[in-house]
Amino acid sequence: MVIVGVIGGRDVSPWHLGEAEKVGRLVALKGGLLICGGLEGVMEAVCKGAKKGGGLTVGVLPQGDKKHANRYVDIPIATGMGAARNAIIAQTADVLIAIGGSYGTLSEIAYALQFNKPVIGLKTWDVEGVIVAETAAEAVEKAFSYHK
Amino acid sequence: MVIVGVIGGRDVSPWHLGEAEKVGRLVALKGGLLICGGLEGVMEAVCKGAKKGGGLTVGVLPQGDKKHANRYVDIPIATGMGAARNAIIAQTADVLIAIGGSYGTLSEIAYALQFNKPVIGLKTWDVEGVIVAETAAEAVEKAFSYHK
Amino acid sequence: MVIVGVIGGRDVSPWHLGEAEKVGRLVALKGGLLICGGLEGVMEAVCKGAKKGGGLTVGVLPQGDKKHANRYVDIPIATGMGAARNAIIAQTADVLIAIGGSYGTLSEIAYALQFNKPVIGLKTWDVEGVIVAETAAEAVEKAFSYHK
Amino acid sequence: MVIVGVIGGRDVSPWHLGEAEKVGRLVALKGGLLICGGLEGVMEAVCKGAKKGGGLTVGVLPQGDKKHANRYVDIPIATGMGAARNAIIAQTADVLIAIGGSYGTLSEIAYALQFNKPVIGLKTWDVEGVIVAETAAEAVEKAFSYHK
Repeated sequence: MVIVGVIGGRDVSPWHLGEAEKVGRLVALKGGLLICGGLEGVMEAVCKGAKKGGGLTVGVLPQGDKKHANRYVDIPIATGMGAARNAIIAQTADVLIAIGGSYGTLSEIAYALQFNKPVIGLKTWDVEGVIVAETAAEAVEKAFSYHK
Repeated sequence: MVIVGVIGGRDVSPWHLGEAEKVGRLVALKGGLLICGGLEGVMEAVCKGAKKGGGLTVGVLPQGDKKHANRYVDIPIATGMGAARNAIIAQTADVLIAIGGSYGTLSEIAYALQFNKPVIGLKTWDVEGVIVAETAAEAVEKAFSYHK
Repeated sequence: MVIVGVIGGRDVSPWHLGEAEKVGRLVALKGGLLICGGLEGVMEAVCKGAKKGGGLTVGVLPQGDKKHANRYVDIPIATGMGAARNAIIAQTADVLIAIGGSYGTLSEIAYALQFNKPVIGLKTWDVEGVIVAETAAEAVEKAFSYHK
Repeated sequence: MVIVGVIGGRDVSPWHLGEAEKVGRLVALKGGLLICGGLEGVMEAVCKGAKKGGGLTVGVLPQGDKKHANRYVDIPIATGMGAARNAIIAQTADVLIAIGGSYGTLSEIAYALQFNKPVIGLKTWDVEGVIVAETAAEAVEKAFSYHK
């Protein structure tokens, strides 16, 4: 089973949220396991989409209490490690899709590239090594094809 | 869904392994989600049992590469944090069952009690606060009844 | 330079605080570097003692903001990892002295023994492998002699 | 005391190493405490410089064994957390100087900006929010002036 990490921030545009939900749904339909940060914004939208697609969702939380997980997280992991939990998502995923996001997302992109994981970017940071996609469908397509 | 953490070491007796497998099976049959350290010994036996019972297993690994997970782990979490990952298991579980084990298991028992999680002990460390059980069946029974 | 980890809780008796301060002073006078959890109770008392003895103190904080360090900490390390920071203290110290303490202290003792570090205990948990001392002076004496 | 974090990679040019050593020396001469990742390359050069300047150096290691610290590290912190230790450096420092570096450095820059710490960049990643400097002297000057 391919583990797809989806990273992105809490304060994003409606466009980003819409694409995130589509990404989640498509990942689930392709049989991928979704892993994300488990909170709001992109993280909630992608989990919502994955549930609509019949998939399973893992939320790796910065907090030590799983009550902080959004309601679409099936499996909350309460790390209590704060932002350092970003390294866990990057290490666990086989491939990552970054959607919008701020500095937290940038740290996850950097970790993923450091760990030699393919990173697909949807209107996110322009970092050397990120594979650009324009739509949710293209991002998921590339995620599954770059992961071998 | 109740998340049941099962903790225990790599080098344990056949009796412990047998009970661990039974614990995993019973947790799954009761609809619990199993979380453990994802490696060998008690961790592998309990995952094996959970799969026999039709359950889902999460392995929170000390390593940063999920290839270290035993083959009965459905969802590997590659923390890369070493022994500090014990805190994640204790924080994520609603209730824990400790089976045998050495100092690593003791650190997990201590974390769980620090976080006010019920800990059921099967031939493990005698620490104040641990609820003693004699068999796998009793341990699982107590785990589900102490978690409210 | 020997790095001496001192572990112990926030809510302890005046006797424990008095011994902790003595331990800190003696560690400093023997040229040891003190590392602890950086917060109140035993942690503050031992840092206070170390400063009286002219030593240097490191506080490995659970929080991500160093403002939580007690005022006798020279070098705060803001981990943001919560209780998982206990593993850092156990890994960094050459030898540890446990003074009183509750479950948090027990997790540190367990980690230290798992990492094969000598642990000297002053009225603390009775765990196999802990070297018992009755006074601050005896604890520091044993800490420096057991560390080779 | 100002805590200055210096971040940068292992494989860098001689120019970067030279500037790193100068940065370390200047930070020490201004009374700053140096914190870095404790390994080779920029990390070793900046520690070497700090020792020449009479300063104190802290190395926050990814490994769980302090033997991995370079020989100019006074205070090794053996985190055993792998790349997640980058978050600790960003949280502990008051201000950061990034020198060259690859994806690991980028993750540290991102964390530092996420935590609202000023980041001075010396021929490093071009990320919005990084304050550019051309020389070691300018970088240290800016680090001490931006931190207030």
